[in-house]
This record gives sequence, structure tokens and C-alpha cells, in this order.
Amino acid sequence: MRAVSQDSFGDPTVLHAVEVPVPALLPSEVLVRVHATGVNPVDAMVRSGAFAMLGQPPFVLGWDVSGVVEETVPGVTRFEVGDEVYGMPFFPRAGNAYAEYVAVPSRQLARKPAAIDHDHAAALPLAGLTAWQALVDAAGVSEGDKILIHAGGGGVGHLAVQIAKARGAHVVATASAAKHDFVLGLGADEVIDYRAVDITEAIKGMDVVLDTVGGAVGRQSIEVLRPGGLLLTIVDRMDRELRAATIDAGRRFAGITVEPDYVGLEALAALVDAGKLRPYVEHAIPLDDAAKAHELIESGRTQGKIVLTL
Amino acid sequence: MRAVSQDSFGDPTVLHAVEVPVPALLPSEVLVRVHATGVNPVDAMVRSGAFAMLGQPPFVLGWDVSGVVEETVPGVTRFEVGDEVYGMPFFPRAGNAYAEYVAVPSRQLARKPAAIDHDHAAALPLAGLTAWQALVDAAGVSEGDKILIHAGGGGVGHLAVQIAKARGAHVVATASAAKHDFVLGLGADEVIDYRAVDITEAIKGMDVVLDTVGGAVGRQSIEVLRPGGLLLTIVDRMDRELRAATIDAGRRFAGITVEPDYVGLEALAALVDAGKLRPYVEHAIPLDDAAKAHELIESGRTQGKIVLTL
Repeated sequence: MRAVSQDSFGDPTVLHAVEVPVPALLPSEVLVRVHATGVNPVDAMVRSGAFAMLGQPPFVLGWDVSGVVEETVPGVTRFEVGDEVYGMPFFPRAGNAYAEYVAVPSRQLARKPAAIDHDHAAALPLAGLTAWQALVDAAGVSEGDKILIHAGGGGVGHLAVQIAKARGAHVVATASAAKHDFVLGLGADEVIDYRAVDITEAIKGMDVVLDTVGGAVGRQSIEVLRPGGLLLTIVDRMDRELRAATIDAGRRFAGITVEPDYVGLEALAALVDAGKLRPYVEHAIPLDDAAKAHELIESGRTQGKIVLTL
Repeated sequence: MRAVSQDSFGDPTVLHAVEVPVPALLPSEVLVRVHATGVNPVDAMVRSGAFAMLGQPPFVLGWDVSGVVEETVPGVTRFEVGDEVYGMPFFPRAGNAYAEYVAVPSRQLARKPAAIDHDHAAALPLAGLTAWQALVDAAGVSEGDKILIHAGGGGVGHLAVQIAKARGAHVVATASAAKHDFVLGLGADEVIDYRAVDITEAIKGMDVVLDTVGGAVGRQSIEVLRPGGLLLTIVDRMDRELRAATIDAGRRFAGITVEPDYVGLEALAALVDAGKLRPYVEHAIPLDDAAKAHELIESGRTQGKIVLTL
């Protein structure tokens, strides 16, 4: 089968098409024919060597998958051949989803939301689970909570805005001016141009802040939280100084790492099918042009998500 | 740290104590100080080479763990240092739980049931999830269902009897005469000595049969099911002839392979804490005597479970 691999760390041009065997299934696994696979910022960090999560190349990136069950091993009861499924296999180990077929443990998959196609479903697992596990599992966001979502137009941010709204929260989002209409269209109650406004002046008393940007944004976020409020960060989770500063200021801190989770996938699919969540795909690019997708994601200017199609 | 490893396939004497580094944590993982680790029939099959699921030795067996969180990586929010947890890491890959410490993805753990100690909690994950995923996830056993559980005194069977009763089913179990009191004590409505009675004569009209024995028992089970009834097997899931014979007879067939599942672990813990489920530990043996535990499990005469203690 066709896959996109890399033999060394480096810029996007290290990504190239290869022919490899169709993966063999272990007990509990399902073989998925990949229709689309999502591209995430973490993919670029692993590709470049900035985050050597998978050890040395060669390896095949790709943690987001939407496709059709091609084969199951005896012992799997959750799916049958022909079912449309989506999921996030094996994170933080090699996902291997930049490929025609991928092997996935059955409880790392859920049924694809019926209301969206594979391209859109492939945009959902890693970013959507990140948002879900932060807002719902860690923060327990509910009716009336005031929440600030940084980069509300980004891959995780645009899903977080919709999930927080679906939970009944009052959502403030930051975004560059060019993305304001997009973010308001997602349901955000207020959008703030972080380039034009000092957010520590403009925003006060938040119950929860979701930082998807990192760096100075984390420090600023402490000030916009109410006492006892919760800073969630998907970027600076290793930053002990930020953690200490948050706690010293009487706020709470939680770093977030996404994890495979069929319950979260099912919850996200239910929101999609209820019309409350829709992943936005800015670019759908053929798998063989994975390098181009990585250039785009590294530009930092993406609105919503990038997927690779097969 | 101390662990029990093996350098070749073979009889129980290949298991020996080794000193190995404490595992490094990847994102999403928790380091658990192991208080007890369960021994399952699959452990013996992998050790001997009968089921080369982990490739060639050396490897460290052990999928059942109960212990205390020693460390978490930033990004984990489900647990804190000091929490008592239990789970089934990485199945069907190497679990590495025959050791002082084990690294486990946070969503492959749940809080240890408060009502039982570590020795008992370590007896629950693999066998309990097998029973739960078969009876609840695959069969949807509910109030009034008539279910036959083969080897109702065994590692999976004794948990399956209690789970089925907790779901409101009418439970018939098979067991050798010596285990009848034990199985009745678990709540079974009827116990049948499969050595003295032809079960195809004695039992009719079952909605569900759980086969934990395999071989001739699977064939006999077809006859005791009502038309449309479901044969669950955790042993002969690869047996295409059994599957075909079951379907030809107008019954349904589902092979079961257990899979990590925090939702299942939480459900099992809730049943334990509600007083409806209690794992029975026949032998608690020091980790260094793992070979003895394997001899016992291979005898096929175990009642309930065997655990290794640290």
C-alpha cells in the first residue's frame, strides 16, 4: 500500500511516498481503509525533530483517521466490515495514518458522525478530543461558565468554541481581525483582536481559560481568571514556572495531553449529528502532497484544519 | 527496579527476577507503583510460546495492575500522585506489569474500587473487562435474560456470574462438583456438574451462552441456545467452523478479545463498591515466585484468580 514516510528529521520535504505492506492486525484491532487523515501541529513538530516523540525515523506520521472498516480480527464486536469509523490510533506512539490502510484498536475508534463526510471527520479526532478532554473531562465546563478560548479560529480553538457553547458556556475568543467573522459564526459571544487590545485590560473574571497558543499568552491568562479559576494549556504543560505562577496567584492550572478515548469520540460525533459541532476544513490536500500540508500548518495562519485525502 | 522477565519461551522456570530501569513516561502516562499484578491464562500461553503475541523474548509479562500513582507527566489530569488505581495496560502489547513500577496511559486506568484491597483489585481488570465486554458491550445482557456461563468458578467465569446477576439475568453455570458451593455463593441460580450431566439435555432455551472453556463446549453450546440466541466465546474466537455451525443453526456468534477500557473499569469498580461484585483470589504469591503462579494457572484447577504481590 501507499504511505508517506520520512527517513530523517527535517523540513517538510523529508516527507515522501513509499510502498509498504498493509499492516497485520493484532487481537482487538480493526483495519481501516483511510479516506482522509488529519494534519496537526504536533505532526510538524515530530517530523522536524523538535519533539522526538517517536524516536528516530523512519516512521509514518498520522493520528487522525476517517475511513471504512476493511477487516476485523475475530474477537472484535464493536464494528463490522463496511462500517464508517473515525479515531486517533495509538497516540502518543506512531499512528501510521498517513497511509492507505491503518490498524486501530477497536476502542480507539467510534462511528463516524453521519452528518459529515470523511474529510471533515478526519479533522475531528485529535483536535476535538484535545478540546473535549480539556473543557469537559478536566474543567467540567457547564451552563453559564465564562470561558476564554485563545486562538478561537485555530484547529483546536474552533472546536473548543463550539463545544463550550454546546455546554452552555459564555464564550470569549481571541482571534486576529481577519478571523472574527469566522469565530463569531462558530457561536462565540465575544471575539477580541489580541493584536489590538491588551486582553488583561479587556477581559476579567473568567472561570476557565483555554490556552492553545503558549508563551506570553499563558502569563496573561492568569490575570483574566477569577480567583480559583482554571488555566488549561495544551501547549505549555511542561512549564513549571507558569504552573507555579498560576497557583501563587490563587488560580488553578492543568496541562492537557490528548489521549485515545472512544467515549470522547462518541460524544463529539453526537454533537456533530445534533448540529452543534462542525469541523472546518480549510485545505483538503492529496496524501502525496503531505509536504505542502506541513508547510501550511507551520505557517500558523490556518483557519480550522488541514486534512490529507486518499 | 525489580521485574520478572524471560529470555526464552518455555515452561514456568523460564521466568526469573531481573533488575531493569524504572520505565520512562510518555505523554499521557502515569507511573504506577505496583502493589499486586494478576496472572491470567493468556500469560502462560505467551510465556510458553503457544501464542507469540509479543514476538520473541525477552519481555516482561503482566497486564493486570493495582497500585498507587507514583508520578504523572504534565498533561495528565485524571490522577494525582498518591491515587489508588487499577487497570490493564497496553493489552495486546507488552504490559510489563510483573514489576515494581509500570507506565500506563491514564485512560487505561480507573480508580481502584475502595471496597477491596490491591490484591483483589489486581484480580479484576483483564478477567473482569473480558466478562464485561462480552456480557454488557457485546451481548447487552439485561433483566430476565437467561444465560449459561461455562466454568462459572473460573477466573472470568466467577466474575461473569456476578456481573450477569447484577444485570438481572437468570444465571446457569457449569462447574465441577467441588466448586458448586462457591458458584452458588456468587449468586448463580443453578449450577450444573458438566461431568455428570449432558448439558445439551439438561439446559434449553438460553438467550446467551458464555464459553470460557472452548473445544467441545462450544459445539454443545449451540444446542442449548434458543433460536437467535448468542454464543459468546473468549477461547475459540478464531474457530471459523464453530462460527459457521452456530450461524447455520440459526444462532448468533461473537468471539471476544479483551481491550483496555476505562469505562469498563469504572463500571466494574462501581459494581464492587455497590457490593455486587467481588473478585475471589485463591492464591496471592510473591512476585519472585511467578513460576509457581504459572504452574498453578496451567493446572486448570484454579478457583477464581491468582495474583502476584509486591
